[in-house]
Amino acid sequence: MAKLIIDMMGSDLGSAMSKEAVRLFHRDHPEVTLVLVGKKEELAEMEGDTIVVAKEVVKMASGALEIIHQRDSSMVKAIESVKTFSADGVVSAGSTGAFLSASTLLLKKIEGVERPALVTSFPNFKKGGYVTLLDVGASNSNTAEELREFALMGSFYAKLINHIENPVVKLLSNGSEEGKGSPLGKEAYPLLEKEKKICFGGNIEGNGVFSGEADVVVMDGYSGNVLLKTAEGTAKAVSGLLKKAFKRNLFSKVGYLLTKKGLKEMKDALDPKKIGGALLLGVNGVVVKAHGNSDSEAFYNAILLASRLADERIVEKIKEGLSQ
Amino acid sequence: MAKLIIDMMGSDLGSAMSKEAVRLFHRDHPEVTLVLVGKKEELAEMEGDTIVVAKEVVKMASGALEIIHQRDSSMVKAIESVKTFSADGVVSAGSTGAFLSASTLLLKKIEGVERPALVTSFPNFKKGGYVTLLDVGASNSNTAEELREFALMGSFYAKLINHIENPVVKLLSNGSEEGKGSPLGKEAYPLLEKEKKICFGGNIEGNGVFSGEADVVVMDGYSGNVLLKTAEGTAKAVSGLLKKAFKRNLFSKVGYLLTKKGLKEMKDALDPKKIGGALLLGVNGVVVKAHGNSDSEAFYNAILLASRLADERIVEKIKEGLSQ
Repeated sequence: MAKLIIDMMGSDLGSAMSKEAVRLFHRDHPEVTLVLVGKKEELAEMEGDTIVVAKEVVKMASGALEIIHQRDSSMVKAIESVKTFSADGVVSAGSTGAFLSASTLLLKKIEGVERPALVTSFPNFKKGGYVTLLDVGASNSNTAEELREFALMGSFYAKLINHIENPVVKLLSNGSEEGKGSPLGKEAYPLLEKEKKICFGGNIEGNGVFSGEADVVVMDGYSGNVLLKTAEGTAKAVSGLLKKAFKRNLFSKVGYLLTKKGLKEMKDALDPKKIGGALLLGVNGVVVKAHGNSDSEAFYNAILLASRLADERIVEKIKEGLSQ
Repeated sequence: MAKLIIDMMGSDLGSAMSKEAVRLFHRDHPEVTLVLVGKKEELAEMEGDTIVVAKEVVKMASGALEIIHQRDSSMVKAIESVKTFSADGVVSAGSTGAFLSASTLLLKKIEGVERPALVTSFPNFKKGGYVTLLDVGASNSNTAEELREFALMGSFYAKLINHIENPVVKLLSNGSEEGKGSPLGKEAYPLLEKEKKICFGGNIEGNGVFSGEADVVVMDGYSGNVLLKTAEGTAKAVSGLLKKAFKRNLFSKVGYLLTKKGLKEMKDALDPKKIGGALLLGVNGVVVKAHGNSDSEAFYNAILLASRLADERIVEKIKEGLSQ
């Protein structure tokens, strides 16, 4: 059964949020072992769990460079604890840049991976199932060779986690025709075309990502961040407009009550909290980054994602896939 | 009063669509002069308008390089007609790459502009008014200096067209803190900070674009394309989910009827057809690109946008602004 290290500090909402998430998670998943890392005084009440004491908390604004010097932080201690406790992985809601770079540094990249990628799956609203996106923000600049690695890792991920036998991998571009794309995309296209371990389906535009045209979409980390945040912002704006439409008058308010159940399903489908976090793929360990503004439900789901990925032995399987 | 050249061919739906749009436009705006460019046989019925005959139609897949050799195409003839007829501008729904590069080549860039940008305004759902985005796809790669130009042009555009006195200009990034961003963004940041003609507000993430955090958002053309298409795809996916929620059962169907009017307003606010097109800013002429899959309503709105921009003397005013 999975054993996970949890960085209890560093989210926007502090340890009250993470303690609540851990309590609920224990209730629902007693078979998973959690090791909690954080300030002694804040975790005193968490009886029954192994506690690793850390004195500092990594600031949200901390980048890749600062984290190396914060050896006493809950984040660094949590990542180090993966080895100490022979754990499967680690979950944190702290600074993305700091968490990803420290994880890469301390857990080391797996063979065949030059640059780990942040991967997430989105519901495929049109044909059902999920679409896997990577890199959604581990890097802010990539090479064509790195995009080829992302394609390979994404394809294995879609097979293993989303159970798609022969996932169609597409490359994010500014046009669907061959020859379109950023200079980087144009360089990566022939590499993906030649890669025999994937089923390459050509270019895809931003409006095709959520409409079932691909099982995996490969992109550089900067574009991936823009894409993810834009989708989030748009969904939020549309929800705001919808709320306004329902508040219009008495009729529309009754209309809301009659539609409530279906709307709840829609809201759940769009809720990033339900996914909880993104996986850093390509390092020795299940490294799950939860949103910095996670509430206990989102953090719970990030822990759940990590435990599922650990149960699936995602790291070992990606290693096997890459070495074949 | 505005005089505009209309490329009647080259959209996905052919000239039946554009003829319908022109007919409706004449009915509503008899004061605007339109010169129609296209195949003789297809425009025979358009009495009352000046017709420029073109034998070819530029293919949707045509890029910047091919267009130069298609001197007999409706697109090239339309752009050339801006000078011949001393017109204010030109509207086309044909290939974006071809239209933008031919317009830049034939109408020439205005002084102080190294690289024209495609600009569009979106409703600012939170605080009302509009947010101006550029470049949303004229280039597929840019320099920091070009981003500075975009900031200037965008700021003038927001002042002139959206009537915002001191528009806040932000730079698209993968984090809101200074120091975040792609290598290009990091290079552009100090240039925007130093630019005295704009009110620079720092970085903005994709999820801030539609929530009223900025009046102008500057980005490279590749990211701009990704952002725009992702927003479009997400809005469409959410609308699909909403439709499903309303079709759930008899109650939800009644709920739909009670909310219909508010939902129509919401649909209109999200409909790219209502905006119609994007302006190529930085060339000598009002160059409006309509969506390739425009229907007559969208094409009508693209012509309307062009005539409004011509009435505002946008090109002359941008020139004045840049030369001060």
